Amino acid sequence: MRVVITGGFGFLGCRLAAALLRTRTLGGAPIERLVLADRTVQPDSPPATDPLVDIVHGDLIDRLDDLFAQPVDVLFHLAAAVSAECEADVDLGMRANVDTTRALLDAARAQSATGGPKPRVVFSSSLAVYGGGPGLPLPPVVDESTLPLPQSSYGTQKLICEHLIADHTRHGFLDGRIARLMTVSVRPGKPNAAASGFLSGIVREPLAGLPATCPVNPGLRVALSSPRRTVHGLLRIAEAERGTGPGRLEGTVPVNLPALTVSVGGMLATLRQVAGDAVADLVSIRPDPAVEAIVASWPAVFDNQRAAALGLQADPDFLSVVQDYVAEHADAVRVDPPPWRVRRRDS
Amino acid sequence: MRVVITGGFGFLGCRLAAALLRTRTLGGAPIERLVLADRTVQPDSPPATDPLVDIVHGDLIDRLDDLFAQPVDVLFHLAAAVSAECEADVDLGMRANVDTTRALLDAARAQSATGGPKPRVVFSSSLAVYGGGPGLPLPPVVDESTLPLPQSSYGTQKLICEHLIADHTRHGFLDGRIARLMTVSVRPGKPNAAASGFLSGIVREPLAGLPATCPVNPGLRVALSSPRRTVHGLLRIAEAERGTGPGRLEGTVPVNLPALTVSVGGMLATLRQVAGDAVADLVSIRPDPAVEAIVASWPAVFDNQRAAALGLQADPDFLSVVQDYVAEHADAVRVDPPPWRVRRRDS
Repeated sequence: MRVVITGGFGFLGCRLAAALLRTRTLGGAPIERLVLADRTVQPDSPPATDPLVDIVHGDLIDRLDDLFAQPVDVLFHLAAAVSAECEADVDLGMRANVDTTRALLDAARAQSATGGPKPRVVFSSSLAVYGGGPGLPLPPVVDESTLPLPQSSYGTQKLICEHLIADHTRHGFLDGRIARLMTVSVRPGKPNAAASGFLSGIVREPLAGLPATCPVNPGLRVALSSPRRTVHGLLRIAEAERGTGPGRLEGTVPVNLPALTVSVGGMLATLRQVAGDAVADLVSIRPDPAVEAIVASWPAVFDNQRAAALGLQADPDFLSVVQDYVAEHADAVRVDPPPWRVRRRDS
Repeated sequence: MRVVITGGFGFLGCRLAAALLRTRTLGGAPIERLVLADRTVQPDSPPATDPLVDIVHGDLIDRLDDLFAQPVDVLFHLAAAVSAECEADVDLGMRANVDTTRALLDAARAQSATGGPKPRVVFSSSLAVYGGGPGLPLPPVVDESTLPLPQSSYGTQKLICEHLIADHTRHGFLDGRIARLMTVSVRPGKPNAAASGFLSGIVREPLAGLPATCPVNPGLRVALSSPRRTVHGLLRIAEAERGTGPGRLEGTVPVNLPALTVSVGGMLATLRQVAGDAVADLVSIRPDPAVEAIVASWPAVFDNQRAAALGLQADPDFLSVVQDYVAEHADAVRVDPPPWRVRRRDS
């Protein structure tokens, strides 16, 4: 099969590609080609150097012919403009998120309409589709039957794409699957323009010996998922057979990936536990109303039964998330003593 | 104020225009110009002949400059491709419903961004945004907190527009208000390509002495609103002040217009009561799976508290709806004896 990942050189795209290249199969079928499509590419470093990988470089909307030059069996659509930039520039978000997705769906439909395989399209949506609006607050616990009422343009655009994919799936144009991602933490690398970026930054930067700003009240609770579990969720949703019953995907209702609920203060306490006071004190609390408005509009507590039926579980606690990060990104950790010596208090 | 109605020569557009021209005010403010925009116009008949009326003729997307040549204070956006044509041609529906609405919103935003008034945009959405999907059935009673899971492309497109309008309103680009219309019955005139068209046809055609086909099982329940109450609902939502409390509109959550719940069999029984056996026998039941799939996916029972807080009530019964139709469209009723002599059984 030929698998395409848009945003293939992004953080999640690279991890997803690496996971696919480890097994070289998806849902039991061998992967013949893995196409990584992105506006920015690193052709000389893994996973791009794998002989199975093809690279499509450029704006997606201009490179659809290349993506679909050979039949696409599975398309992971991860590419997106992120929350803060979409809030600041609605037109940019509409182009990058809505118009691009729509063009991809058109191409996928054209493939199946002309006798090609009906592509499986796995869309990375977001918890940002949810939000409590005036007169209609979010319920204390959110599941897939909860009304999405996005309070950001990013969430609005993701939700629009969800509905387009559901409609195309209902028509039989493609086989769409929607995974709503929680905030992925801890992301390695540089800060991005996501409003949630600080939820990685307040751990990543201090561990690198750098100061970090926390733009929200530490009492704010958030819904997190580690990179590992997020990629696992995307793969599981891509592999799931259609039908009713445990382990199968029914209909076009999105799946919320499992959420670890933690307060920002709790995250900082874990950092203190792992890396000590000097490191934790690198974080200063400086509320930013624009960021807080977006992040506080997202739900923090989920009922993840639908994901659990697919075998997906949340991270057990934030300590394990930080320990994973430290173990995987030792080169980005520059504190003394090395925090990977720290073990759970209860073990 | 300058008021624009898109789809201004459609059935609801004409009725809305006539209602506005009766009072020549909206929300207490005098209407200086009323612009009726449509692809098909009847410039020589009311309401177009009123001196307050301007006509903009053509595809909306090509005539935005004319619509916004003078500041728009209130925009009723009624123009749309209807359900059956959107289901048969998804691209047509996306262009007519989504792209056109988006272009209108862009123009409205440009007006307020360049120092013009922030337009009030009243969008006619539809109960078709709701539907029970596999694995997530509709609840027995629907209200505005119910998850919309459209089972038609028309419903999908209306829902996408709702979210665009909500996001534009949240940003302060415009003041959007969303009325979800029930199936309007009894519509006069010719059948259209709406899947729900028969819900007018099974009354209108027999009353005109013509045969009619009912494409669904008579046990199917539907949610109706008379033309009069539908137009009243649009006006009320346009006029409502923003804020909290009774009679005010809070936030961007749509308002479901009040629904009269009736079975198709009950509608036919009312026709029989009003017009007699010979007329009622002009209706033949011939289920059409394509139509039934769309119409049966829509909810029939609503909790209309939100509309009630704005002072809106459903039609009391279908008999009064038919009596209204007969009284208003005497020229389209050709049965003997004339059914307007028939009064309620209980009066």
